[in-house]
Amino acid sequence: MTEARTAEDSGVGSEESSDQLDPEEFLRRMRHSAAHVLAQVVLEMLPDAKLAIGPPIDTGFYYDFLLPRSLTPEDLETIERRMREEMAKKHTFVWEPIPEAEARQRYADQPFKLELIDEFAGSTLGICSHAGFTDLCRGGHVEHTQQIGPFKIMNVAGAYWRGDESRPQLQRVYGALFPTETELETYLQRLEEAEKRDHRRLGRDLDLFSLHEEAGPGLVFWHPRGGRVRLEIEDYWRRAHLEGGYELVYTPHFGKSGLWETSGHLDFYKESMYAPMEVDGEDFYAKPMNCPFHIMIYRNARRSYRELPLRLAELGTVYRYERSGTMHGLLRVRGFTQDDAHIFCTPEQVESEIVEVVRFSVEMLRTFGFDAFTAFLSTRPEKAVGEPATWEVAEAALRRALAEAALAYEVDEGGGAFYGPKIDLKVVDALGREWQLTTVQFDFNMGTRFGLRYVGEDGAEHSPYLVHRALLGSMERFFAVLIEHYGGAFPLWLAPVQARLIPIADRHVEHARRIAVSLQTAGLRADVDTRSERMNAKIRDAQLEKVPYMLVVGDREAAAATLAVAVRRRDGENLGVLPVADLQSRLLEEVRRRT
Amino acid sequence: MTEARTAEDSGVGSEESSDQLDPEEFLRRMRHSAAHVLAQVVLEMLPDAKLAIGPPIDTGFYYDFLLPRSLTPEDLETIERRMREEMAKKHTFVWEPIPEAEARQRYADQPFKLELIDEFAGSTLGICSHAGFTDLCRGGHVEHTQQIGPFKIMNVAGAYWRGDESRPQLQRVYGALFPTETELETYLQRLEEAEKRDHRRLGRDLDLFSLHEEAGPGLVFWHPRGGRVRLEIEDYWRRAHLEGGYELVYTPHFGKSGLWETSGHLDFYKESMYAPMEVDGEDFYAKPMNCPFHIMIYRNARRSYRELPLRLAELGTVYRYERSGTMHGLLRVRGFTQDDAHIFCTPEQVESEIVEVVRFSVEMLRTFGFDAFTAFLSTRPEKAVGEPATWEVAEAALRRALAEAALAYEVDEGGGAFYGPKIDLKVVDALGREWQLTTVQFDFNMGTRFGLRYVGEDGAEHSPYLVHRALLGSMERFFAVLIEHYGGAFPLWLAPVQARLIPIADRHVEHARRIAVSLQTAGLRADVDTRSERMNAKIRDAQLEKVPYMLVVGDREAAAATLAVAVRRRDGENLGVLPVADLQSRLLEEVRRRT
Repeated sequence: MTEARTAEDSGVGSEESSDQLDPEEFLRRMRHSAAHVLAQVVLEMLPDAKLAIGPPIDTGFYYDFLLPRSLTPEDLETIERRMREEMAKKHTFVWEPIPEAEARQRYADQPFKLELIDEFAGSTLGICSHAGFTDLCRGGHVEHTQQIGPFKIMNVAGAYWRGDESRPQLQRVYGALFPTETELETYLQRLEEAEKRDHRRLGRDLDLFSLHEEAGPGLVFWHPRGGRVRLEIEDYWRRAHLEGGYELVYTPHFGKSGLWETSGHLDFYKESMYAPMEVDGEDFYAKPMNCPFHIMIYRNARRSYRELPLRLAELGTVYRYERSGTMHGLLRVRGFTQDDAHIFCTPEQVESEIVEVVRFSVEMLRTFGFDAFTAFLSTRPEKAVGEPATWEVAEAALRRALAEAALAYEVDEGGGAFYGPKIDLKVVDALGREWQLTTVQFDFNMGTRFGLRYVGEDGAEHSPYLVHRALLGSMERFFAVLIEHYGGAFPLWLAPVQARLIPIADRHVEHARRIAVSLQTAGLRADVDTRSERMNAKIRDAQLEKVPYMLVVGDREAAAATLAVAVRRRDGENLGVLPVADLQSRLLEEVRRRT
Repeated sequence: MTEARTAEDSGVGSEESSDQLDPEEFLRRMRHSAAHVLAQVVLEMLPDAKLAIGPPIDTGFYYDFLLPRSLTPEDLETIERRMREEMAKKHTFVWEPIPEAEARQRYADQPFKLELIDEFAGSTLGICSHAGFTDLCRGGHVEHTQQIGPFKIMNVAGAYWRGDESRPQLQRVYGALFPTETELETYLQRLEEAEKRDHRRLGRDLDLFSLHEEAGPGLVFWHPRGGRVRLEIEDYWRRAHLEGGYELVYTPHFGKSGLWETSGHLDFYKESMYAPMEVDGEDFYAKPMNCPFHIMIYRNARRSYRELPLRLAELGTVYRYERSGTMHGLLRVRGFTQDDAHIFCTPEQVESEIVEVVRFSVEMLRTFGFDAFTAFLSTRPEKAVGEPATWEVAEAALRRALAEAALAYEVDEGGGAFYGPKIDLKVVDALGREWQLTTVQFDFNMGTRFGLRYVGEDGAEHSPYLVHRALLGSMERFFAVLIEHYGGAFPLWLAPVQARLIPIADRHVEHARRIAVSLQTAGLRADVDTRSERMNAKIRDAQLEKVPYMLVVGDREAAAATLAVAVRRRDGENLGVLPVADLQSRLLEEVRRRT
């Protein structure tokens, strides 16, 4: 295992006794040591293995190997078993420095090790030995293999040497390792839950969306069911924005290169932009951001202070270039629709505007079922445009907004973009994972570049403040987070199908249809399972589809004087037989409350 | 004047007496003759003028000249006065054939005439003389200049010789000419009305949208007010489609070239497509149509007859290349949002589907205030894909749909595209002009190219019918038509601002604000004119902005026991003082009824 020591990073030598260590450092050492045992048994199984590196990670450890063949699931089982056997033998880890020449000799047939020796030539090198296996290493182990905590070999994945696509592709074997069996078990369960909730899997199983290599990577197709959820999100978003004093605009997806030169995107952002299209001898670029287009609308008229704050909002689809290998479901895509807005305001208005944006965002995220947030404030870096006084006003506004929203926050001093300070908000989902969604970002650059002005109450021209903000981030990313947060079981107001009529026998289909139409007329999304399947099969399928309400119709319900159904909730609770009118009110109220 | 006679087109010689002619032919001759008089006086004013051509047109006549200087408005006045003076002199028109050599000699210093003589070499040429002026001409005049009807010189515009941008740019002088003063007057009034309603002018005056050469020609920026109208249209459209059994999808704006090869667009439609963008060594094209993307969603799963008809709808923004000079406001643009849908259905379903589409379209267009329609059916051309039996089913469905909707229609036999028959619907607007909006188009090509299938009740695979349809056409074009139809005075449910509070004095502003908030809370779009202007100025401005309701608040209204306002409609009608609650119900009902 190789984490060669650099001059600056002397690390912690293996000579220190384990009991002096804090638990975190001891855990790190357990994981580090487990990686050594992993390398030991792999080299024993496949003597031609070329060893790369194997650091501890947040959930355990890994080791990268160049192997003569692909590892199979059976190999992983053998590896885990052999590791346990070796660990039981209480091998001692011994670390010692090694002269460079000796290291080169020892690793003559290990090209990755040689490359690391080259890299750290001049620093002190060390090796760590146990059970006759030695690895180039900077140290940091437990005393012996019985001290290594509970672990599990997880999986093998491809990884390029040094993360460089032009270098050999290695096999990375991952292990999970925690201080106690309970912690390992909790981790494995959460992992299983996260896999069940994976939005790519649920996207397929619930028929929500697809991506097609044939059309292009990172371009999302929203299917009817996913589109239904998106429409509900967008409708709510638009109404909330209109009520909040925003104005909705629509702008194109392309713009001439001159516009992107003025905006600075072609200077600072070109790598993330799609290649240009040449039309009539001029280059047009797909927009990676909506800002220049909203600015065009602002600039279309001479603006007076009376018109400010002007809040231009758009569900604007942007395109950004991401490398082929980096895309991931809906979380990292090439085309996505930002829930974007640009606020143009006077210096006097900026604080109340920012306070309101943060309040609005928290309110909106709560509506979608998130109630834990973490906030980050990034302040003025050394190299920055805009007057220091302007930055102060902006940063004060951001701090005030976080305080008013009662959000604890971390400050990244000097971590703002050169063009302005910002707030980022993350939500914590049902599995405790954090997702970055909201950004509120000042821009002192673009206003100057486009020469934005307004006529103040004094009759003179002034520069407005310009604030970018996205609350949900993008429809695609937000949908991914929602799917995983709810595990696909969307709350009623978002569910693609809100109620499914389940006729017990074919003779109940007509009755079920009548009830469905009644619910549909009231504005609810109801359908009928008309298949000639057994009732239990229909209920199971509705549960798999995560339909919130299953409405069973049989002889008893069909015979009732008033339209009635046996109501069963997605969580398994039976609400008994309810008149359709009552059920309808109940569902409409649940939709209205967005719970 | 030159409309040189070809061998096939002997025309009508001037030797026939005027009283034998039908009124239409006589009108044509009046217009033709007026063009001669126009050329006569222009040549007299500017002896270096080079004469091109000057035909009669639907509303009068024009003549194209190459002139040593640009004509001014004063020139046009002089031309009109001089034409009247010459016409009063009762000059006789005399037409006679002329040998080619003599014609060349006579027009030795008139290059355009020489070019025409070259072109018609071998045919009989003629000249027409009056008042000492002669023009190369195929004939067709009135007997003398006093027979020429009421006319008016309208304007001068640029026109390329033969419409060819590489040839000289000429000055085209337009004249309007009608049989009677009344008809001329009606025409001029309608023209004035059309100019007042020009969507480009109203788009600017009402701050609805803009286009920016800086961003790119034909790319539309919807401003807050235009965006508000569009949102109302789209919301209505989406809800109507969901209620009508459509499913809403969202698809990307780009696709890989392979997709456009499969679809056939790169074979048949490439000239109308934007240039490609090269990403990761592959060409991506902006979508000129949504079809291949909806097909990708259809093909994403194995489809059963139980799922059909599947109606995938999208407000899909497409990009098409139009030449720079051909764009016109919102009517001809490069980027536009189609209200698109693709219906996949079985042969048994196709007739009822088409009937419903046409009914739906007429219902929707009526909602937008159109109640006169013209319909066109285009049938199988000689070269066509698809089985004749399939075409028959499709054409029968189209005919049946037109009959059920009680729409009279013209048949363009053989005028369908090679891939399927279609219906086009035009609406007639408030000025009697026709606008093509709806298209319902079968596609027998793309289904085959993409290999679309469904599993029938018989368990075997079948090909579904595929129908494209757009009801409004595109948001951009439809908005242009709506603006012109309503002259910018949108009905209440579409108006960007529905009610404006007009405080008589500054002391009434607070009261006006309270009323505005009350209306806003009820879901109405109300604002307050807080300027320190006189009431009449505020009312005038609200009228210019075409705000449907002006609500005046003064001492009397502020003193009333219940919230009340003096209500004035956009058309000038005063509704007296109304309690706000009553007004609110009235407005909400007007919105609900979409009238």
